[in-house]
Amino acid sequence: MHDVRKIDVMESIHDENDHIAAHVRDYLTEKDIFSINVMGAPGIGKTTVIKHIIAELRERKPYVIEGDIESDIDARALRAIGVKTFQINTFGACHLDAPLVHNAIGNMEFDEKGVLFIENIGNLVCPAEFRIGEHALMLICSVTEGSDKPYKYPLAFERADLILLNKVDLTPHLDFDESFFMKGLRALNKEAPVIKLSCKTGEGFAAAAAWIETRAAAPAKRGTEPPL
Amino acid sequence: MHDVRKIDVMESIHDENDHIAAHVRDYLTEKDIFSINVMGAPGIGKTTVIKHIIAELRERKPYVIEGDIESDIDARALRAIGVKTFQINTFGACHLDAPLVHNAIGNMEFDEKGVLFIENIGNLVCPAEFRIGEHALMLICSVTEGSDKPYKYPLAFERADLILLNKVDLTPHLDFDESFFMKGLRALNKEAPVIKLSCKTGEGFAAAAAWIETRAAAPAKRGTEPPL
Repeated sequence: MHDVRKIDVMESIHDENDHIAAHVRDYLTEKDIFSINVMGAPGIGKTTVIKHIIAELRERKPYVIEGDIESDIDARALRAIGVKTFQINTFGACHLDAPLVHNAIGNMEFDEKGVLFIENIGNLVCPAEFRIGEHALMLICSVTEGSDKPYKYPLAFERADLILLNKVDLTPHLDFDESFFMKGLRALNKEAPVIKLSCKTGEGFAAAAAWIETRAAAPAKRGTEPPL
Repeated sequence: MHDVRKIDVMESIHDENDHIAAHVRDYLTEKDIFSINVMGAPGIGKTTVIKHIIAELRERKPYVIEGDIESDIDARALRAIGVKTFQINTFGACHLDAPLVHNAIGNMEFDEKGVLFIENIGNLVCPAEFRIGEHALMLICSVTEGSDKPYKYPLAFERADLILLNKVDLTPHLDFDESFFMKGLRALNKEAPVIKLSCKTGEGFAAAAAWIETRAAAPAKRGTEPPL
């Protein structure tokens, strides 16, 4: 019996979430803030990648919302380099949702056109199920995770607008099968570009920043999105 | 308003889950099957670690329940080496729960005293919130994840009975701060042994198997566990 109740409640939560997500996105579009939902597993390098992309932005000011279950380690690292950062702690919750982001942006001041990186909880599953007001979903993977991730966590790969493959400097020490990875990925997502990154060599960050600024300059996608 | 309803439903689900988890554990204790909830982030090496530990078991027969959102890649890999494996696909759900495991063990034949590895969904958050009938929780981490994981995902570290630090052969290529990792870990969990593993060199698997068989031979813990 609890399953039926659970489904009812979850549907109601999803409807309400999508409504607030659309509102958040419209608000950010209005301010000329391009918002990016940054997803990836724990330890995949989300904050470090954001920092490196920020260094390559040419036209837009960076803003960050840091989502963490606990701790503000990442927010402090970003503030230390002068990036306006708002910390959300979920204290147990496994993903960000639109109400949390709505509350965060209400407390942020957007004084220039920019890019808002919303770093989701480290989790390759639940965050994919909730829109949070993003204009684009950026999925960060890593060669250290192995090449079977698209087969096992399909929703995140299916929804991604940009896929970053991090830590490629470690490839010589691993058995990462790139063609198997790409085959699984392309079965789910034909369009998202895949950019290889290395925080050690700097590879890929300029390309990622260029993709973001090009996309941000295009007219924002509007209208009703398909249900997740 | 949906939050209140959500909390009510979640409490009801947790109560029912814990009741079924206790039932599953008692059933396995009765059969002399020591059950292990295997947790870890995506791509941390859960299946590979299980395979290597199985090779070091001396006294008990291995059984595996494979939890995956989709795909049976891991179950096929285990069956290929002759391990009795039951596949659970959750099709979206981010963690195993006790009813899913209850259904699985009802379809498995336990013909010898053994160790049942229950590989949870790759997720460092949600699986920590649900008992699934385990005698022990084995958490797999990796040096590739970085050293701040105990600070960011505390519940998993707090609950773990055994912590495996995988991929240590990659340490020379990383900036893993072991003392920061251990400090965070020990603030949450004073007792769980931490064993370093490398699938490349074979380091640590005999020690992990020995811990499991020693613990399995001790009288099973019984009685009411504290609420999660």
